[in-house]
Amino acid sequence: MAKVLTSREENYSQWYNDLVIKADLAENSAVRGSMVIKPYGYAIWEKMQAVLDKMFKDTGHQNAYFPLFIPKSFFSKEASHVEGFAKECAVVTHYRLKNDENGKIVVDEDAKLEEELIVRPTSETIIWDTYRKWIQSYRDLPILINQWANVVRWEMRTRLFLRTAEFLWQEGHTAHATKDEAVAEAETMLKVYANFAETYMGVPVLQGIKSPNERFAGAVETYCIEGLMQDGKALQCGTSHFLGQNFAKAFDVTFVTKENKQELVWATSWGVSTRLMGALIMSHSDDNGLVLPPKLAPIQVVIVPIFRKEEELKAITEKVDGLINKLKEKGISVKFDNRDTHKPGFKFAEWELKGVPIRLAVGPRDLANGTVEVARRDTMEKEILHMEGIEDKIEHLLEQIQINIYQKAYDFRDNNSFRVDTWEEFKAQVEKGGFIYAHWDGTSETEQKIKDETKATIRTIPIDGKFEEGKCIYTGNPSKQRVVFAKAY
Amino acid sequence: MAKVLTSREENYSQWYNDLVIKADLAENSAVRGSMVIKPYGYAIWEKMQAVLDKMFKDTGHQNAYFPLFIPKSFFSKEASHVEGFAKECAVVTHYRLKNDENGKIVVDEDAKLEEELIVRPTSETIIWDTYRKWIQSYRDLPILINQWANVVRWEMRTRLFLRTAEFLWQEGHTAHATKDEAVAEAETMLKVYANFAETYMGVPVLQGIKSPNERFAGAVETYCIEGLMQDGKALQCGTSHFLGQNFAKAFDVTFVTKENKQELVWATSWGVSTRLMGALIMSHSDDNGLVLPPKLAPIQVVIVPIFRKEEELKAITEKVDGLINKLKEKGISVKFDNRDTHKPGFKFAEWELKGVPIRLAVGPRDLANGTVEVARRDTMEKEILHMEGIEDKIEHLLEQIQINIYQKAYDFRDNNSFRVDTWEEFKAQVEKGGFIYAHWDGTSETEQKIKDETKATIRTIPIDGKFEEGKCIYTGNPSKQRVVFAKAY
Repeated sequence: MAKVLTSREENYSQWYNDLVIKADLAENSAVRGSMVIKPYGYAIWEKMQAVLDKMFKDTGHQNAYFPLFIPKSFFSKEASHVEGFAKECAVVTHYRLKNDENGKIVVDEDAKLEEELIVRPTSETIIWDTYRKWIQSYRDLPILINQWANVVRWEMRTRLFLRTAEFLWQEGHTAHATKDEAVAEAETMLKVYANFAETYMGVPVLQGIKSPNERFAGAVETYCIEGLMQDGKALQCGTSHFLGQNFAKAFDVTFVTKENKQELVWATSWGVSTRLMGALIMSHSDDNGLVLPPKLAPIQVVIVPIFRKEEELKAITEKVDGLINKLKEKGISVKFDNRDTHKPGFKFAEWELKGVPIRLAVGPRDLANGTVEVARRDTMEKEILHMEGIEDKIEHLLEQIQINIYQKAYDFRDNNSFRVDTWEEFKAQVEKGGFIYAHWDGTSETEQKIKDETKATIRTIPIDGKFEEGKCIYTGNPSKQRVVFAKAY
Repeated sequence: MAKVLTSREENYSQWYNDLVIKADLAENSAVRGSMVIKPYGYAIWEKMQAVLDKMFKDTGHQNAYFPLFIPKSFFSKEASHVEGFAKECAVVTHYRLKNDENGKIVVDEDAKLEEELIVRPTSETIIWDTYRKWIQSYRDLPILINQWANVVRWEMRTRLFLRTAEFLWQEGHTAHATKDEAVAEAETMLKVYANFAETYMGVPVLQGIKSPNERFAGAVETYCIEGLMQDGKALQCGTSHFLGQNFAKAFDVTFVTKENKQELVWATSWGVSTRLMGALIMSHSDDNGLVLPPKLAPIQVVIVPIFRKEEELKAITEKVDGLINKLKEKGISVKFDNRDTHKPGFKFAEWELKGVPIRLAVGPRDLANGTVEVARRDTMEKEILHMEGIEDKIEHLLEQIQINIYQKAYDFRDNNSFRVDTWEEFKAQVEKGGFIYAHWDGTSETEQKIKDETKATIRTIPIDGKFEEGKCIYTGNPSKQRVVFAKAY
């Protein structure tokens, strides 16, 4: 089978696009910037959702659902919030179509809304308008709510999963009686995201805070996790915001304290989206296709029978049936690819393209010898093993693959993290890619100038970063901590 | 505790609204016709989703996700489809806001879309536009896809869960090589819905087909399940459509058959929505609040400690901890309501309002006697039982409650189903409510006239209805089968 993907070296961006489409993950739709998430891609997203949903519930959160539409006036109430989102809002202005005199379907101008509705780009405003009704006393706090939803941001340049006009996400919105509690919540959710990215996606992430230029519109502090993709560019994988009392102020949400005082409520919000699919794909995959961590793979093991005659398939099927049951009993998802329309070589390439962690091949000779060929997707290594007790070995191998995928990504990041102390070095390294640890004087002006000249942005100010005296690479002004620069998606 | 609900007898519709709000299921939002689904209501919906999702997967379906927005031109391609939905469409016309000269946030007229986008009221059009790209040969069929999504239909008169501008649902969209296969699919999904309604929701439903007047816009045949609410009105709980080749024709979706001929693809679509929450509430609940079937109750057992002193609570907690673990091991969800801010009577009323199937009360005397008070929500019966082995009794009691709830609703429907043969009787019965089995001459004109005069519609033409010669109650023309009339939500 000929290579179906452009190689990463040849054109990374084309490789990504090829892969998303050819592995049946997603495709562009007829609506500009909106994608169709295909069943195989959606099955991965569903696995992500299930794990995250459990993590949210284990940390005390409940799901709820708030309206898709937000009245325009709500939007204007928090000044920096509207400033951040106004330029990318889909606006509903009418609520009816009709036939014109020629029988053509047109918008009915008689059905114009008095107040335009914004399709939510994020839900702080509608939710805080609701929380006002729910919160009177300290006894009503905290409120710990999450919602799974679609949101729309009218992006001009879109890429499948990474930047689409409509995307799927979860957004947590919590309300607290004290600042400390809200900050602790924002930090807890950052840890949840980091844990998910590393343990399930196998993507090592930096944890830190955003500089003011990169902060969420309306936040006091934005925490983030940042991953490094194989092309040396950074990808923001999730954010958790401490919103202070900004939305409580804008929507007049106060509560009576234990001491009988009226105070504004403290807030957080936090989200991850289908963008994580992009991070997953770009962190591990290779020129043969997807490489999926076993914990998120819809199919963990594929079994390909090698046969010429019907009787051979029958004999293989009999042998394999028992194994399939044993694997299923262990909670391992397995597919027996017994199609007679395609040759084994075609099937091998297809399941490699789709990133199935383990492939077993069984032919007549294996039956005679009581063996099976085991191929792992991450290293492409093959070995012949005895059938007996193979289910335990497969279970163990899945764990090893999960660890290896993470380790590989970790080593890649390690090899592509650089400490840089001069402007010349900095500019050169930005071109080459990677996370660049450099000193910065802490001003928005400098950050902006560095961005204008190099396209590199401050991805994060590490939370656990060591304090270290130094001089800003751009201005030479004093700095107390290195921050992480990179070009980013 | 005073009654918090209007009684059903006094004002059924007010009772429903009170219940939805006071049991913390949902509330109206600031956006006309859109509701906020609160955590307790959403937890029930999540349970419904989980069961349905498994049923869909067990019948071979996969989930995917298609865009929220549909280009207006797509909408116009299937004539009866656009006719059915044009009058209730939210239309996106612009993609940006801006500050006007006074600093006010306004729609940016420079950011007007060339073609308006419709917020999906249902997704046949965008999905069949996509399927055209996916289907070339009989080998690409069938396609068996479902999506969980939000949809918008601009209803003028809305009611929480029953009729809202935005609602949550699932929509299955399948593509087949033959008419028979598509019809079989539509019928299979009807059975899945009926099974779900009866086995999990405890709501007995009639299965049948819709008359042409009530058919889905674009369908050849609409199958439906219909429930009877406690006020004698019918509620359509789910529909499954055989779409023929209508959408394949409109979107030019053809395939090459095994015999190498080009043919149009056959289609179905099917859906249930958050409207099911309304059916669940109205089928079982009483003047004390919700009555939930155990299989869908977020909390199946609540334990209320009866105590005055801290030591008493401590002793009760110690005793109860073991029971909680035993119940959890059985997969029973249990809540220990140890709040010291409310009295037992308040807690009893609150959990009754929220429909928790079983309440256990444990006080100091119970500790001394090794007993517990067990109250079941459906019958409001109480009994004192020995603590030892109580977990098995609770498990059994939950099963009994599930059966009893269904039986009660079944008996209610049975007592409110009538065979009627004259127009006078018919008119009188419509006023009293219930399912009315009557002869109809099969014409849309008669159906419309009956609706105009009585507000009763044909809810369904029973699939397993016995053929029986008779005369139309309205025209006296011959009829071969009774159909089911009722006033409906």
